[in-house]
Amino acid sequence: MPRITLLRPLLHLAPQRVVATRLPRTTILPAVTQITNTIQTRNMADKIRPAARVASQRKDVWSIVNEAAAASEKEVINLGQGFFGYNPPDFVLNAAREALTRVECNQYSPTQGRPRLRQALSDSYSPFFGRKLDPATEITITTGANEGMLSAFMGFVEEGDEVIVMEPFFDQYISNIEMCGGKVVYVPLHPPAKGDTETCPASDWTLEISELEAKITPKTRMIVINSPHNPIGKVFSEEELRAIGELCVKNNIIILSDEVYDRLYYRPFTRIATLSPEIEDLTLTVGSAGKNFYCTGWRVGWLIGKPHLIKYVSAAHTRICFSSVSPLQEAIAIGLEQADEHKFWETSKEDMLRKMTRFNEVWKELGIPYTEPDGGYFVLVNLQKVKLPEDIEWPESVKDRARDFKLCWFLIKELGLAAIPPTEFYTKENEKEAENYLRFAVCKEDSVLDAAKERLRGLKKFM
Amino acid sequence: MPRITLLRPLLHLAPQRVVATRLPRTTILPAVTQITNTIQTRNMADKIRPAARVASQRKDVWSIVNEAAAASEKEVINLGQGFFGYNPPDFVLNAAREALTRVECNQYSPTQGRPRLRQALSDSYSPFFGRKLDPATEITITTGANEGMLSAFMGFVEEGDEVIVMEPFFDQYISNIEMCGGKVVYVPLHPPAKGDTETCPASDWTLEISELEAKITPKTRMIVINSPHNPIGKVFSEEELRAIGELCVKNNIIILSDEVYDRLYYRPFTRIATLSPEIEDLTLTVGSAGKNFYCTGWRVGWLIGKPHLIKYVSAAHTRICFSSVSPLQEAIAIGLEQADEHKFWETSKEDMLRKMTRFNEVWKELGIPYTEPDGGYFVLVNLQKVKLPEDIEWPESVKDRARDFKLCWFLIKELGLAAIPPTEFYTKENEKEAENYLRFAVCKEDSVLDAAKERLRGLKKFM
Repeated sequence: MPRITLLRPLLHLAPQRVVATRLPRTTILPAVTQITNTIQTRNMADKIRPAARVASQRKDVWSIVNEAAAASEKEVINLGQGFFGYNPPDFVLNAAREALTRVECNQYSPTQGRPRLRQALSDSYSPFFGRKLDPATEITITTGANEGMLSAFMGFVEEGDEVIVMEPFFDQYISNIEMCGGKVVYVPLHPPAKGDTETCPASDWTLEISELEAKITPKTRMIVINSPHNPIGKVFSEEELRAIGELCVKNNIIILSDEVYDRLYYRPFTRIATLSPEIEDLTLTVGSAGKNFYCTGWRVGWLIGKPHLIKYVSAAHTRICFSSVSPLQEAIAIGLEQADEHKFWETSKEDMLRKMTRFNEVWKELGIPYTEPDGGYFVLVNLQKVKLPEDIEWPESVKDRARDFKLCWFLIKELGLAAIPPTEFYTKENEKEAENYLRFAVCKEDSVLDAAKERLRGLKKFM
Repeated sequence: MPRITLLRPLLHLAPQRVVATRLPRTTILPAVTQITNTIQTRNMADKIRPAARVASQRKDVWSIVNEAAAASEKEVINLGQGFFGYNPPDFVLNAAREALTRVECNQYSPTQGRPRLRQALSDSYSPFFGRKLDPATEITITTGANEGMLSAFMGFVEEGDEVIVMEPFFDQYISNIEMCGGKVVYVPLHPPAKGDTETCPASDWTLEISELEAKITPKTRMIVINSPHNPIGKVFSEEELRAIGELCVKNNIIILSDEVYDRLYYRPFTRIATLSPEIEDLTLTVGSAGKNFYCTGWRVGWLIGKPHLIKYVSAAHTRICFSSVSPLQEAIAIGLEQADEHKFWETSKEDMLRKMTRFNEVWKELGIPYTEPDGGYFVLVNLQKVKLPEDIEWPESVKDRARDFKLCWFLIKELGLAAIPPTEFYTKENEKEAENYLRFAVCKEDSVLDAAKERLRGLKKFM
């Protein structure tokens, strides 16, 4: 998967601005750097051999688009990365401020996480699981869901083991699995047949169970599920999850269920762990304070599962980060304790659905079809109808990429609006499926969404 | 290295209390757990094969001693783990509270770290390095120094590569190196010949350069240096560092210099990176906000080095944690900016030296020798003179461990005082060197140190 090449073209938008920034120039502008480096440094760079796992120096797409947007001449509206354009709720912020006054909240937490947070998670999640979750043995706190997933892979994946991931995938899965020596095996989620011309529900993105089954080998150790799904917004149905779960039980495959958008669903949401005791025995459920409480920069996540799974995740986490951030763990504990009295979960879901509806009006207005999300805060929009002007001189590295990269580049340059090209989340083999889509994040202030809509109206003249 | 066995004996101190805690019982009391587990769970535990890197389920010594202390019948004074018994300074806490009000400080930071923090580190560290550090390419922020060191190993160590570590070592080094497939090669720091009977300076713990050189092979990729050293308190001399550095230059070995106690030194402190351009080309310097600003639970650390090294550390960090905690990065940036005007560095060093002197009075009083630290906040005390009563019935797992484990157990049980047995930081082969020592942390309130001294006077009757 060649991912590095987006970088240069996006930065070409405004090279003079790029030079002035404090971005890591050696990685983003290799040609310039080679000129300015001393001979000695060049020699050292030759002598220093990195580990294969980091040798590619590919940049994650989030950084790339954020940096490109930051470097643009226009003030770019960034609907790329899924960070929130507003603060966590006051009751959580107040809890964080209060935690900062307490000595024990500023020092190391137990590696498995603060007892108060594990208790709060047990109280909050036990009703969903239909049984009392033991905070001592069935919950572990991680440095964001991301490091939590790495901990899960580190806990179970060894050299040559296979992990099944659906396309499109959240890109960190891939490097996390590969860091453990695992081999990623891909199964596609097929887009709606009429996706180029009609707005379709996210449930029209389909997994063929037979395709999944065909990918299972004796080396298959884990499968990653993501529901609500990023970037599709698909909430997997109970039937789909049951079929996946039964395959996993039959083949003793550990299920890593990334449910970080678990409070944002707009149709019934099923947790795969709850479908049968046998499936639960194999399931690690991933949650995220950052996604739940609008604080993606706090780096607090968790995994829930039976003790025979959690103990190894926790062991891996200890070896990776030792422990996670104490005062913000405490704040999230208090946030979970108080969320119901503040009616936070209902409100946050209603707010997000309202933002989603508000933003998507512009596509209706333009006659541009999109995938109606069942959950989460992303919308995949199909821009097949947008005609990219023929006289555009594509930068070297965009011209050989899928069409969504060109759309992304065009939107930043022409409209001053950043979105994410989803073929970054596909293997080369299957990227054709998503080449007309772009992913927009709506977890932004209404005024930002309105400004984005106004800019998107500029697409009319290209249709 | 058998490390798991400390656990049970320490918990035997008060089993009735342990049962009531929320500690992960499956890992700490396997016998009990097997009885309470259902047959189904036992079967699953058989079916779930963990990765070798976490299979041992050994617990880190910090958690073990903390948990044992927490489970004791007495209220144990914990001078075991090096967390602070007091808060970060107000100017840093205020900065954290202020950061929490800002939207961008609650969302993802750039994976390499917040620009303001990298700039503040450049401003703060450039004078030490004698040249302007480029915040864009020569500094990367990590989730604590611990994850920073893992990122460094992940950036350069591959299956079969060797990493040289000095004994005694900070235990996380070992699991971090092994996670990358690296092989740890040990070189001892020899204790003072008269350590059993006389108080000696930390500089009397010596590295034999010829022993180090003998361990270098074509597979040696990195060496870990720790100065000021934990647990010895040794500040490596310029001569020692130069000898190490020259060996590394000769053999193209990357130097990972763990300098997390870099603001706490009581004799001249040399940074190995500053000794020559050739050494600097190979050196990654590790720093820690937690150690600098009394906030071990904030998980903000950094690595400084030339771009040809930092870019791979940063790439590994991105794949491990994606990014680090935003509001606390911002607070540390402000802390660094304001530290000088608050005379914080002088004050913090004076305070710690005063605590060290205050605490060590008790050893003089008792006639017990210790290693006089050159830096840091740990003191290694030689308890050879303490006669362990012959009628003690040692728990199963302590009775076969080195004498320091028995001393540790005895101090918790007899005096209600927790310290760390340093043979945990040795290979079996060399643990004899440290079997009379215990490590005490003095980064605690004066009242706690005074109470600890009063309890230690109880040793008189065992001498």
